[in-house]
Amino acid sequence: MIKKIKIGMVGGGDGAFIGEIHRIASRIDNRFELVAGALSSDSSRAIDSGENLGISGDRIYTSYEQMARTENARVDGIDAVVIVTPNHMHFPVAKAFLQQGIAVICDKPVTLDQLQARQLAKIIKESGSFFCLTHNYTAYPMVRFARELVQEGKVGKIRLVQVEYVQDWLSDKQEDGDNKQAQWRTDPKKSGAGGSVGDIGSHAFNLAEFISNLQVSEVCADIDAFVEGRQLDDNAHVLLRFKQGAKGILWCSQVAPGNDNQLKIRIFGDRGGLEWAQENPNELWYSPLGEPTQKLTRAGHGVSEVANRISRTPAGHPEGYLEGFANLYRDIADALVLHQQGKPRPPELQLIPGITEGIAAMNFIEAVVSSSKSNSQWVPLNEQ
Amino acid sequence: MIKKIKIGMVGGGDGAFIGEIHRIASRIDNRFELVAGALSSDSSRAIDSGENLGISGDRIYTSYEQMARTENARVDGIDAVVIVTPNHMHFPVAKAFLQQGIAVICDKPVTLDQLQARQLAKIIKESGSFFCLTHNYTAYPMVRFARELVQEGKVGKIRLVQVEYVQDWLSDKQEDGDNKQAQWRTDPKKSGAGGSVGDIGSHAFNLAEFISNLQVSEVCADIDAFVEGRQLDDNAHVLLRFKQGAKGILWCSQVAPGNDNQLKIRIFGDRGGLEWAQENPNELWYSPLGEPTQKLTRAGHGVSEVANRISRTPAGHPEGYLEGFANLYRDIADALVLHQQGKPRPPELQLIPGITEGIAAMNFIEAVVSSSKSNSQWVPLNEQ
Amino acid sequence: MIKKIKIGMVGGGDGAFIGEIHRIASRIDNRFELVAGALSSDSSRAIDSGENLGISGDRIYTSYEQMARTENARVDGIDAVVIVTPNHMHFPVAKAFLQQGIAVICDKPVTLDQLQARQLAKIIKESGSFFCLTHNYTAYPMVRFARELVQEGKVGKIRLVQVEYVQDWLSDKQEDGDNKQAQWRTDPKKSGAGGSVGDIGSHAFNLAEFISNLQVSEVCADIDAFVEGRQLDDNAHVLLRFKQGAKGILWCSQVAPGNDNQLKIRIFGDRGGLEWAQENPNELWYSPLGEPTQKLTRAGHGVSEVANRISRTPAGHPEGYLEGFANLYRDIADALVLHQQGKPRPPELQLIPGITEGIAAMNFIEAVVSSSKSNSQWVPLNEQ
Amino acid sequence: MIKKIKIGMVGGGDGAFIGEIHRIASRIDNRFELVAGALSSDSSRAIDSGENLGISGDRIYTSYEQMARTENARVDGIDAVVIVTPNHMHFPVAKAFLQQGIAVICDKPVTLDQLQARQLAKIIKESGSFFCLTHNYTAYPMVRFARELVQEGKVGKIRLVQVEYVQDWLSDKQEDGDNKQAQWRTDPKKSGAGGSVGDIGSHAFNLAEFISNLQVSEVCADIDAFVEGRQLDDNAHVLLRFKQGAKGILWCSQVAPGNDNQLKIRIFGDRGGLEWAQENPNELWYSPLGEPTQKLTRAGHGVSEVANRISRTPAGHPEGYLEGFANLYRDIADALVLHQQGKPRPPELQLIPGITEGIAAMNFIEAVVSSSKSNSQWVPLNEQ
Repeated sequence: MIKKIKIGMVGGGDGAFIGEIHRIASRIDNRFELVAGALSSDSSRAIDSGENLGISGDRIYTSYEQMARTENARVDGIDAVVIVTPNHMHFPVAKAFLQQGIAVICDKPVTLDQLQARQLAKIIKESGSFFCLTHNYTAYPMVRFARELVQEGKVGKIRLVQVEYVQDWLSDKQEDGDNKQAQWRTDPKKSGAGGSVGDIGSHAFNLAEFISNLQVSEVCADIDAFVEGRQLDDNAHVLLRFKQGAKGILWCSQVAPGNDNQLKIRIFGDRGGLEWAQENPNELWYSPLGEPTQKLTRAGHGVSEVANRISRTPAGHPEGYLEGFANLYRDIADALVLHQQGKPRPPELQLIPGITEGIAAMNFIEAVVSSSKSNSQWVPLNEQ
Repeated sequence: MIKKIKIGMVGGGDGAFIGEIHRIASRIDNRFELVAGALSSDSSRAIDSGENLGISGDRIYTSYEQMARTENARVDGIDAVVIVTPNHMHFPVAKAFLQQGIAVICDKPVTLDQLQARQLAKIIKESGSFFCLTHNYTAYPMVRFARELVQEGKVGKIRLVQVEYVQDWLSDKQEDGDNKQAQWRTDPKKSGAGGSVGDIGSHAFNLAEFISNLQVSEVCADIDAFVEGRQLDDNAHVLLRFKQGAKGILWCSQVAPGNDNQLKIRIFGDRGGLEWAQENPNELWYSPLGEPTQKLTRAGHGVSEVANRISRTPAGHPEGYLEGFANLYRDIADALVLHQQGKPRPPELQLIPGITEGIAAMNFIEAVVSSSKSNSQWVPLNEQ
Repeated sequence: MIKKIKIGMVGGGDGAFIGEIHRIASRIDNRFELVAGALSSDSSRAIDSGENLGISGDRIYTSYEQMARTENARVDGIDAVVIVTPNHMHFPVAKAFLQQGIAVICDKPVTLDQLQARQLAKIIKESGSFFCLTHNYTAYPMVRFARELVQEGKVGKIRLVQVEYVQDWLSDKQEDGDNKQAQWRTDPKKSGAGGSVGDIGSHAFNLAEFISNLQVSEVCADIDAFVEGRQLDDNAHVLLRFKQGAKGILWCSQVAPGNDNQLKIRIFGDRGGLEWAQENPNELWYSPLGEPTQKLTRAGHGVSEVANRISRTPAGHPEGYLEGFANLYRDIADALVLHQQGKPRPPELQLIPGITEGIAAMNFIEAVVSSSKSNSQWVPLNEQ
Repeated sequence: MIKKIKIGMVGGGDGAFIGEIHRIASRIDNRFELVAGALSSDSSRAIDSGENLGISGDRIYTSYEQMARTENARVDGIDAVVIVTPNHMHFPVAKAFLQQGIAVICDKPVTLDQLQARQLAKIIKESGSFFCLTHNYTAYPMVRFARELVQEGKVGKIRLVQVEYVQDWLSDKQEDGDNKQAQWRTDPKKSGAGGSVGDIGSHAFNLAEFISNLQVSEVCADIDAFVEGRQLDDNAHVLLRFKQGAKGILWCSQVAPGNDNQLKIRIFGDRGGLEWAQENPNELWYSPLGEPTQKLTRAGHGVSEVANRISRTPAGHPEGYLEGFANLYRDIADALVLHQQGKPRPPELQLIPGITEGIAAMNFIEAVVSSSKSNSQWVPLNEQ
């Protein structure tokens, strides 16, 4: 029996979306225990939310700074904090806990801007603390399998990476109503320079680099706020060039009626092609050049141990978004234990996204915005 | 904060399939706590499994009878036991716990045969204890929504119910190797009179009655063990007649290459049709007569509170088998609390399958076997 | 340049459905020329229809008997007649032309009943004339490829044949309005003993035998006329047993809302599975046991000459119902020329359906009706 | 009975792809008769091909100039010529026939370059002759229906037009073998400035403008020849801006393994979305904002007369590429008769693509190539 990891949470109070997702994901494999929280910037909501979650009264905080100090001082203090606030709070909260030596599990995008991301990198390095970023889509079994097929050369040398993340929930001006998600996600002070680019484009970017094992070198972008009066982009068209010579297109949108969370990626090399879509994540389509397309299914025939390691149910009993997220949490649990023991991570745990992926995504967001402002000139991504 | 329900488990030791599914499902919504177990009939495996699950040493049992007595005697004894043994043990284990006044959450099919099922019904009644049966497919949000559409008359008077549950994992003689799942599921002493009929046909039958709100009155069946030397059927073809006049076909198979867990149901009435498949459970297809077919998605446009109540993630972030199972567990938690309080269940909790559904499925299994033996004569299902 | 085959048509006047389908199918490969017709039993409609089709005035007939005699007497008389009348006229028309030594291309089902079918067989034999039956679905390239895969043993020994043909157009009582198609197809005097069974069940039966290369030995059926007052069945549930030991289910329906012409077949053997559906006829799904499912596409990778011979467009440029029908017509053209020359058919032309398939389908229809009348007893199909 | 239109063909000899497609398409509705041809630049192939097609010996030509003169001089000369040569011959052939007053049906792209296209426009105008261009994808029934839904405001004001045409057949260097299609299509002297852009990107561009009823104003492109040594692009990434404010992406590729002829378009407005794909052309997906997505099927429920006019088979009996092409031919037949009678075209016949669409596509191709050469600067399309 492995000891459970004690976690606290900042953000994620009653009614929030991603906080509950993290809580469920952390429970699925029974490796974490939520024991503390500063769940809202609103005191009474923070307290109510804590009580609803069964957190002991003395560990329900109304200030994250106080939480960081107090938890660090406790003998039974938390091992890690989960940050699920709007983007603009990621940096100060992460900083506060890292400086107390508490591990950080942070939602994406990592910070409000690239500058903060680089400062955070420094803090992580100096503190020697554990930091990871929940780019959850990388932990779907069939995404891992796609990456493995690429690495094994099953698609040959990659020529094309086509990725899109398409939604419709901001097709009209939701932020004018009482939709809190819409409000902060369209507010540059809370979201950063990117709207759809930051919220979902960053996921698409991260997934493209993760599966292809390539790095975007420059972008040529045309972004828009189609809904009148919206402060941030709700659609982005981005041409990609990769260091290794491949080309690509990234499209993200929140104004495409009929799409819920259509994150889809297609990769084509000189020996084959791959296709995966998040709305049906148990399937991966593989087309060896000149042969029939194969439908590979999670835990099914022809799927490797890399994917099966993070699979819980038999083929045909679909796993979904929460299990994908839970895969990340399970690996974080193992990595955190190794970190506490001062041991190195085995290869599979090196795939957990961290500050490097965080900075890369911030570079991407800022390059996209910059390219679009310059009428779609190619803008290089900063070297890290 | 709601107090967690303390559960014990019988069966489900290391390497078992369905035990781990129940444990994950019970954790997802944080309403249960596993504190005791008699996890295997093999003592050392029972002990190892208990330790691996972090169960306290004094509550790891090697005998379910002892567990029932001991837990009942403890002040902090379990509220409920989860039975995830092979079928033949369902009855004795359930009986032991019910008679100690401990609630029972039992995997399907309810018992080895109909006679046992009726005895169990008596025991439940006499004990006044809580009993439920995990026909998990009924708890998918879009299955509930399908049922609601039927009840609202959206398909009109039902004429046809076509259901199939198709797998391929027993296409060759797995039971001759070291596949424990295959061994007990093809052994009449452990599984009962039905092979595929009992294992998956019972799910299909239950789902058909659940969504349609109709009752099968008689069956005409032709069942086979296609794999030479297999003791139980691995394929069943069943014609259905419903009390209310509808007709149907039920097909279940474990020898259909290319199928993992293809549970699919189609219902047609004089005003419309519905189609749902477990391998893509977030979608429900609705065809109003004379209008275009609609694709309804979990948590998406046009979906009602009945489905949304048991939905955790936004549309397009797929939920799967474990979330469906967890829906049942969450409802069981609420129902159990009400039971302890002596209060009646609200309508949505009345959908939790229980002994009635268990007996119906046993009636179905036995009628199918009987019909097939009589060269496919129509055999009525026993009245309960 | 091959000489065009001169054809006449009986039935298929303005407004008819299947007549125009035959005409287009016969034109696609430029092997036929329509030069004569008795296009309607209504004289003025026969004349108008003939003129609209550009048939020369002296070859527009108002009596098929007269047409048979006159055309036979002409030096430039037709080589073949196409019979596209309601079912009850197939026999007398075919007889009239065969006895004049004119080849017959007949729509299915071959006659009104089995007795007529056997009489027709005799007439064909005695006349030495050419006769074929347009079970058009057998001529889709991917159906032919499926049959080839079966013959090559790619699915191993067949255990299961599941076939369905599902429509919704008779979900309400169309025959009471001015829908001529509905009127004759629900009229036993014009359609025969089977409604949906005769109209579409016969296609499903034929396709199942064609691809599997197995023969149905007996059926167990439950058929219904769900629409009140309808004279013939609009739904049929049929269990199948094949001579070679396989089992199957055939479902046909005209009252399943949301289905247009959903003819779908699945075949499972001890080494693999196949699935094909008419509404997307360019795809064939092949599942070798224990390997990923393959998506085979018409004219695509891994598809053989057997399918490519009857393919006109590159993969991804879909062919449809008319091209499938045209494949049959092209083969009929070749077979007819060989017949005229007294030469034997090569193997690929032996697949053209004829009186044998016609009788088999009549046997099937009558056995289904008979089984259903006897409360679903197993009824053997007559030996031919 | 309508008199058949007499056509001749230039190009399309034995073994060519698109010539046979045109011939079948012209036959399907029985409105054309092929009576003359200069089917190859190779004399003996021209003669053999003509004979194989049953063309009378005196109308088999080895020179298109001679054919134009001779046919014009004949009393029974052709009404129209079909040009199915490689691109570089479109202009001289069209010119020769137009100047003889013979109508021209020309395959796309219209000419080798924009300059030729504008010259051709002048010749058409001065000759007063009939000219049309076979952008066949615009004639699929569900494409027409999509256009109608847009015009009726069913998607509201269009924000996004995403179109792609993806193949894999040039993933390796086919042009080095004996693949004649690959040879001329990758040869700038025969194809023009665009490789994939000209061959399939032009179709995607045309379809996008056709359905959306918007005009591309400028493009920002990044094109590649991924296969080493290839002379023309085999992949193009193009950002689009439309005059009316919408944005879009056009991707075309011939190096994406697993894709045959995946032409797909998605249009999103402020009130709804549409999706159509050529490989399954009988379906159109319509998503009204805030409502479930609808699956509209050719000839099915909710589909209008605009689409049904050009539909031949009932819903569920798929029509394909050839029928789509034939729709264009049928409309051309009607338009040509009106032209001969000096009458104006009704609205539905005004949709036949002509020189305007031809010039637009040439503008597009050249702007894409120019943008890519300037490192993806936005390049306006020439005004016509």
